[in-house]
Amino acid sequence: MRRLALLTAAALAVVSTTGPDSRADEGMWTLNNFPADTVGKKYGFTPSPEWLRHAQLSAARIGGGCSSSFVSKDGLVMTNHHCVHDCIENVSSSKKDYVKDGFLAKDRKDEIKCPGFELDQLVEITDVSDKIAAATKGLDGKAYIEAYKGESAKLEKACSGGKPEVSCDVVSLYKGGRYDLYRYKRFSDVRVVFVPEFAMAFFGGDPDNFVFPRYDLDVAFVRAYENGQPAKQEHFFKWAKKPTKEGDLTFTVGNPGRTSRLLTMAQLEVERDVRLPRALVYLSEYRGALTEFQHRGPEQKRVANATLFYVENGVKAYKGRHEALLDKAFWSSKLGEENALRQKIIADPKLRAAYYESFGAIEKAQTEYRQLWNRWMYMEGSYGFRSELALWAKHLLRAADERDKPNEKRLRDYTDAKLPGLEQQLFSTQPVDLEFETFTLGFSLTKLREALGADDPFVKKVLGKDSPAEAAKKLVHGTKLRDLETRKALFKGGKKAVDAAQDPLIELFRRIDGDSRDVRKRYEELVESVERKHGELVAKARFAIYGTSTYPDATGTLRISYGRVEGYKDDGKWVKPITTIGGAFERHTGQEPFALPASWLAAKPKLDLALPMNFASTNDIIGGNSGSAVIDKDGAIVGLIFDGNLPSLGGDYGFDPAVNRAVSVHTAAIREALAKIYGADALSAEIAP
Amino acid sequence: MRRLALLTAAALAVVSTTGPDSRADEGMWTLNNFPADTVGKKYGFTPSPEWLRHAQLSAARIGGGCSSSFVSKDGLVMTNHHCVHDCIENVSSSKKDYVKDGFLAKDRKDEIKCPGFELDQLVEITDVSDKIAAATKGLDGKAYIEAYKGESAKLEKACSGGKPEVSCDVVSLYKGGRYDLYRYKRFSDVRVVFVPEFAMAFFGGDPDNFVFPRYDLDVAFVRAYENGQPAKQEHFFKWAKKPTKEGDLTFTVGNPGRTSRLLTMAQLEVERDVRLPRALVYLSEYRGALTEFQHRGPEQKRVANATLFYVENGVKAYKGRHEALLDKAFWSSKLGEENALRQKIIADPKLRAAYYESFGAIEKAQTEYRQLWNRWMYMEGSYGFRSELALWAKHLLRAADERDKPNEKRLRDYTDAKLPGLEQQLFSTQPVDLEFETFTLGFSLTKLREALGADDPFVKKVLGKDSPAEAAKKLVHGTKLRDLETRKALFKGGKKAVDAAQDPLIELFRRIDGDSRDVRKRYEELVESVERKHGELVAKARFAIYGTSTYPDATGTLRISYGRVEGYKDDGKWVKPITTIGGAFERHTGQEPFALPASWLAAKPKLDLALPMNFASTNDIIGGNSGSAVIDKDGAIVGLIFDGNLPSLGGDYGFDPAVNRAVSVHTAAIREALAKIYGADALSAEIAP
Repeated sequence: MRRLALLTAAALAVVSTTGPDSRADEGMWTLNNFPADTVGKKYGFTPSPEWLRHAQLSAARIGGGCSSSFVSKDGLVMTNHHCVHDCIENVSSSKKDYVKDGFLAKDRKDEIKCPGFELDQLVEITDVSDKIAAATKGLDGKAYIEAYKGESAKLEKACSGGKPEVSCDVVSLYKGGRYDLYRYKRFSDVRVVFVPEFAMAFFGGDPDNFVFPRYDLDVAFVRAYENGQPAKQEHFFKWAKKPTKEGDLTFTVGNPGRTSRLLTMAQLEVERDVRLPRALVYLSEYRGALTEFQHRGPEQKRVANATLFYVENGVKAYKGRHEALLDKAFWSSKLGEENALRQKIIADPKLRAAYYESFGAIEKAQTEYRQLWNRWMYMEGSYGFRSELALWAKHLLRAADERDKPNEKRLRDYTDAKLPGLEQQLFSTQPVDLEFETFTLGFSLTKLREALGADDPFVKKVLGKDSPAEAAKKLVHGTKLRDLETRKALFKGGKKAVDAAQDPLIELFRRIDGDSRDVRKRYEELVESVERKHGELVAKARFAIYGTSTYPDATGTLRISYGRVEGYKDDGKWVKPITTIGGAFERHTGQEPFALPASWLAAKPKLDLALPMNFASTNDIIGGNSGSAVIDKDGAIVGLIFDGNLPSLGGDYGFDPAVNRAVSVHTAAIREALAKIYGADALSAEIAP
Repeated sequence: MRRLALLTAAALAVVSTTGPDSRADEGMWTLNNFPADTVGKKYGFTPSPEWLRHAQLSAARIGGGCSSSFVSKDGLVMTNHHCVHDCIENVSSSKKDYVKDGFLAKDRKDEIKCPGFELDQLVEITDVSDKIAAATKGLDGKAYIEAYKGESAKLEKACSGGKPEVSCDVVSLYKGGRYDLYRYKRFSDVRVVFVPEFAMAFFGGDPDNFVFPRYDLDVAFVRAYENGQPAKQEHFFKWAKKPTKEGDLTFTVGNPGRTSRLLTMAQLEVERDVRLPRALVYLSEYRGALTEFQHRGPEQKRVANATLFYVENGVKAYKGRHEALLDKAFWSSKLGEENALRQKIIADPKLRAAYYESFGAIEKAQTEYRQLWNRWMYMEGSYGFRSELALWAKHLLRAADERDKPNEKRLRDYTDAKLPGLEQQLFSTQPVDLEFETFTLGFSLTKLREALGADDPFVKKVLGKDSPAEAAKKLVHGTKLRDLETRKALFKGGKKAVDAAQDPLIELFRRIDGDSRDVRKRYEELVESVERKHGELVAKARFAIYGTSTYPDATGTLRISYGRVEGYKDDGKWVKPITTIGGAFERHTGQEPFALPASWLAAKPKLDLALPMNFASTNDIIGGNSGSAVIDKDGAIVGLIFDGNLPSLGGDYGFDPAVNRAVSVHTAAIREALAKIYGADALSAEIAP
């Protein structure tokens, strides 16, 4: 699912940069810089400024990395089931499991409020590049950052006027090539109207995640309220009168989270040859072990479930990204792009002097990174110590040291701004399962020993004479950190308390902290800081050359993409772009995750099985686009984005029009289900075209 | 360990071809074409023909993929523990476990005969290229093969004269560029003299497999007998008087099994981008699952042990090969080599006409292979159906169909020559563990569904409406094939019996056999046959250009390599080439696989801990070299090959002098252990320098 892909992408991405030249159906365009003429030439329809403004005002961003859109004058909002999953889990109880059973409000007073759920409607975009430039003129380094932050805060405050229902952000586009002020209208009273059963929203489960053909009803309806009343909307997307079909022009309007399309080839090589294959091997073994761990019993199955889910999602996502980078045509196109950029930089003495050496600097950093990767990932990253208890121990130890330093000298996890979040994590009341902790820590210690070698000094400091399994057992069963009060006392007691602690996990991290900090320092100095500094310079060169004729990398803000309903070639076979409701029944086996809910089985005789269920289109999307409306040239809804196919995972690096496909729920399936399965007559009437 | 690496390499290798230009320390040279002058120039020592002949006659090949050498005039032979592991397991009993406890013959009459163990001493090499050329002149295709086989059989028969103690082989070198007749003296009465405990021979277990620094005593002594008496030897390697040290010139004399150093770049790309990463991901997940399966209980641990061992060995081997291909310098050197070869072919109109198009043909086959890979591996290869019972079912079904056809029309597994082996496999009395079978089949069916997709027609034929776990359970518990008599009846009953069988596994393969055969046919036509035909043409072009100035790819026959004791850079750190006996004690943890045997612990005070234990050298070796002697310029033994480091696994594709290292037991450790730990006084005296 797209929302998780975003998290995965963010975890692995290095530098977020701007995109390549405008090409076929590529681009996550800002609403005030849409290549309408290009679309007009290709598809015979040129979106007008009014058309774009209507699209902008009909869309709404969901806090936490999803998209949605208004679909009625009475504030009805459509998004994905997986974007409101948290909400409906929170409002469920032991008596009512809305995740399992779904939910339909009988009438408006039955709509259930989602705690902490917010919608942002982008009302206005103002170019503030000049103001930022004036405020930061002649400044460098830290002074530049402070002036930038100060001016942004001033602009944002003036924009919102202190009103809680107005939210403003200065958005840095093209990596500082342009600054726009985005003003949002914020809706913080949002209520659930309808969700289907989880089995239908995520039909096919992990085997079908990032897969097409697909048969999911990953849809949810919520309603925005103002002053206790449905929030009236001037702009909303109507339902298309005719179902979309193969070849039709489609637009998506949503909030792609993050892309990394301007990694240099040297960085992409490290992705392709080091990070992705090693992550895949590590996570695949972990996946196998977790799957088997679940066979120990039902409680073990329960406690390992979420971890396995994230690991499986990660394996799929990394696999897709790896396949994209291994694709020869895709690689050639990235190489061609970089060569063209380099040529243009070389051709202009000023650009050459300012930017050309950055490619070399980034390449050199990659050589360091290849050398450092194992130690960085196993000693300081997440590969060596997979355990909640171990993470607590490390944080307690480091927080004690760091809090005594001035704020600006601390490791980033322990700055004043981060401490509240750290406390929330340390003082979590989540239960800790000792068997599972022993298992995960034992697994990661085994991998640590394998990666660095059994006679590595660091490994010896960690394991002593113990085997990884023995060490994990002793540490997990010996520590007192499972006890919340112990953690509180150690955190509040500061350095003195932590120094005095005789806890085996604290002692472990005391032994190795110097080594881990050293690796972190080397990584930050030799790799991270170089990539950041020179990545921005490369991006600036790009902006200097291409300006706004291209689109900026995704920034979690509103974008529009265009494309069409189209199949693709997979494993030598042409995949048709539209599945049918009947296909879901054909794939129903009665066994999870291919078990349709009872409501669908009962309604089968009434359904038109030939109607479209899901469809693939060439729209350029990425994690964060979950819940985006797919609209036609009339600005009417034809579908609802909920996923991408496996090749589209390469979209983090670049768009491959041959195989990257957005995957949507077709409106025909939504309407058929609302009418004939869920008896949602009022809802059906409200969205009727 | 090297012996297993050979099996792994053979399983994955595509085309075995000849090697690149002579470079630093590279090459597995035939004894009659050794670049003595090159060695002389580099190391100041030029091996004489007599020196080479002495080396040739002192070496002995062990049937089944190992090497060894004579080390006394009384037929004493030195090799690796892992080369006689089978033998000592066979001669052990519930009362005497020689694998666990080791063995030392008190005197010669206590030496234990190894059933089925044979040694081949290469006595003479004769160039028979002209005879083969005359016999095959003007012939092509099948006629060529038959004439070649006929002439070889004639030459071999004349050479051996029907004597059982003489064995002769026509060896095709440089892929048919040259034919040599190898005459061996065969020793079939071989007895165990000494082996250490398994814990010492394989100290470090899987974590240390293919790893350096290393601390193994992977040594065994056996004795060749003739007519019930120790076989007197004129030629044998003496023990070096001075221990070898860093920088010393070293030679290895042994039988490397197989290399694939002339895969074209197009083929190497498929190795790097498709086969190896996918195999690694698959096997890593399997490894994780197997490791956890072993936690179900002691019996589950036992039944899964061998499988896990092979999977772990495979993961390490593939990882090393993948890392080699991902190394930029290594890749560039392979590319440079191919480009040089292509240039030379282009420059000569005759060569160009005969050979140039072969590169393109191979490249085209790789495109097909990328497309086919998933279906080939999951439908017909080993990835989709991991189960002994399933394999039996498939063989029974196919054998019934194939045996009715003329011999030359059958699938290769069912020709008259292969049927005895098939019967041995089908009628094995090995016990079948239903829980483990359900586990392995369930795992592979899950991967099958993941690889081809849940709604793939083939997957549907396999699973029907069942989940992979359900299907595996039904098949394994429903089949009668676990019963030997049932299998015999089905095999002997032929097509009629198999057609009438209502066994669920037979029924499964009946449903899918057409699809699997189709994939096999496509693979053979589009990939395999093209690679074979054009691979030979490329190799012939190479031979036409370079002749014997280079070395032929490994063929499981006697070769000599040269190099020196030298460290290498690993993960940015310089690894010293020699470990010490003390290092083994430092790494002893008391927990397997890092638990030294009691004999070593007890003897520690008597040992000189500063003595060398294992060492790394630049000699070019590969699987099959296990047990090769390492000799100095005086032809005296300084070590015993038993492994290579992780980077040396890339040796399948080419030799990287910077990091490829052979790993040997140092003679100092062998002598110290024999004298002070094992009290092997007679043996010590026999090998005294």
